[in-house]
Amino acid sequence: MTRRIAVIGGGLIGRAWTLVFARAGCEVRLWDLDPEVRARALDELAETCRLSGDDPSAIAQVRVCDDMAAAVDGVEWVQENGPENLQIKREIYAELDRLAAPDTILASSSSALVASLFAEGLAGRSRILVAHPVNPPHLIPVVELCPGPDTAPEVMDRAEALMHAVAQVPVRLTREIDGFVLNRLQAVVLAESLRLIEEGVVTPEGLDHTICHGLGRRWALLGPMAAINLNAPGGVKDYLARYAPTMARLSDDAARGEAFTERVADILAAAMPPPSQVPELSRQRDERLAALRRFLRDND
Amino acid sequence: MTRRIAVIGGGLIGRAWTLVFARAGCEVRLWDLDPEVRARALDELAETCRLSGDDPSAIAQVRVCDDMAAAVDGVEWVQENGPENLQIKREIYAELDRLAAPDTILASSSSALVASLFAEGLAGRSRILVAHPVNPPHLIPVVELCPGPDTAPEVMDRAEALMHAVAQVPVRLTREIDGFVLNRLQAVVLAESLRLIEEGVVTPEGLDHTICHGLGRRWALLGPMAAINLNAPGGVKDYLARYAPTMARLSDDAARGEAFTERVADILAAAMPPPSQVPELSRQRDERLAALRRFLRDND
Repeated sequence: MTRRIAVIGGGLIGRAWTLVFARAGCEVRLWDLDPEVRARALDELAETCRLSGDDPSAIAQVRVCDDMAAAVDGVEWVQENGPENLQIKREIYAELDRLAAPDTILASSSSALVASLFAEGLAGRSRILVAHPVNPPHLIPVVELCPGPDTAPEVMDRAEALMHAVAQVPVRLTREIDGFVLNRLQAVVLAESLRLIEEGVVTPEGLDHTICHGLGRRWALLGPMAAINLNAPGGVKDYLARYAPTMARLSDDAARGEAFTERVADILAAAMPPPSQVPELSRQRDERLAALRRFLRDND
Repeated sequence: MTRRIAVIGGGLIGRAWTLVFARAGCEVRLWDLDPEVRARALDELAETCRLSGDDPSAIAQVRVCDDMAAAVDGVEWVQENGPENLQIKREIYAELDRLAAPDTILASSSSALVASLFAEGLAGRSRILVAHPVNPPHLIPVVELCPGPDTAPEVMDRAEALMHAVAQVPVRLTREIDGFVLNRLQAVVLAESLRLIEEGVVTPEGLDHTICHGLGRRWALLGPMAAINLNAPGGVKDYLARYAPTMARLSDDAARGEAFTERVADILAAAMPPPSQVPELSRQRDERLAALRRFLRDND
């Protein structure tokens, strides 16, 4: 039987999710509050497919709906992509919880808000979780599945199974945590990077090269744990026996929140391509991500 | 005129460096203290070429020398890959400084020791620096160039030019810093990762997936600064205006050196492939890194 999915919100992330589900053969119902977004949605999906090299016939699986009730009717999963505003999220979830059948799972793409903040007090809070993608999810497959304190384990099981079924890579967290995993790791890298740049140890370009021609290459193939497991003859325990003292010393000395200064923002703004180039550079990034996705699929 | 390079130490890193220089057309003189390492060196280089897909004819550029003096005679650059032991490094550099012509640059592959520690007091300390590669340098191109307090700026200029000439990616640091840039960034990622794993928020496998199917894909194409420059419509300043408070909060809460516990080492050792699989998994990693290197060269 064809799986049926609702996508709420037709911006960049909502459209990318729509493509993820549609190209996996799901029937997708897309709704956005803004009629103009709804009117453009199918054309923009076609353009997204063209850029990513996905088969545009997937779009035949998508139906744009005129109201939220029609979108969520009879679906197994709602992927919500509303604004990162707590009041709006609370209103959306109250509405979704009222409209969706009891066994429909309600999943938020939120990166900033944890589920307890907007699920609290709702009758259906056990079916609400965060399914946090990386932008754009049709090109970067990881999805962090973060439960709230009331999310049912079987909801998490179904979430994990669905993400596998649509060829994403679910990472299941056991409990609610600010920033989930991905942004916690990104935050420490940014803090230390900004400090090294502001202190003039390295240029922004040099910092980027260190990652994209260095650690990033390892990390595109192996995560950090698999990488250190191969960086000592006796595996990860041997690695930690040899290097933990050094790594602990460097961590103790690492920058924290104070590294996010106005001054370093100015240094970066002066060094990086200007905002006018952001759309074209983003298009190029997505083309390269699509090619990398094909490469990694073929070289697993 | 053919450039002439000496590689001191014929272990994994020394052989990978030898291939970097030889495939770029340099004449390489390789020396190791151990006669058995010297005897095997050319065969092992041939095997390294086979695995990486490099043209084995590059090996014709390599001459294995029986003593250090012959290796460094008339070379422009010495790449030293001795043990990470301060006393041994000091002895090697005293010897290299005595044997090498005054304008020969002496560069160490050290990741743990900064140049001032082993260059101090030597007549030629202005020509000594660290040129820290990522293992293995014939597959991962970044090289951190870290001066000591006495390293001459023109030595750094020549180091940068040579690395470009042999198709590596030099990152020039302006001053000596513990861990350079790469290991400082690796350290903060490891600390936070180990904490999240030890606290049971995520499994080691889930942690790795978050990077290799998530952030690592961006970071293989763009460094973290270029990535955030595209993650807000107004570029990096807009990104920091929106997200710096969140990122600062997450950094403030991040793990430090205390995360490197015995307990998490045991958790990881139980979860990861055992040491017996390290050689085969390393071979697979290198094959994939070689393929990724070709992919990135073709999709720049």
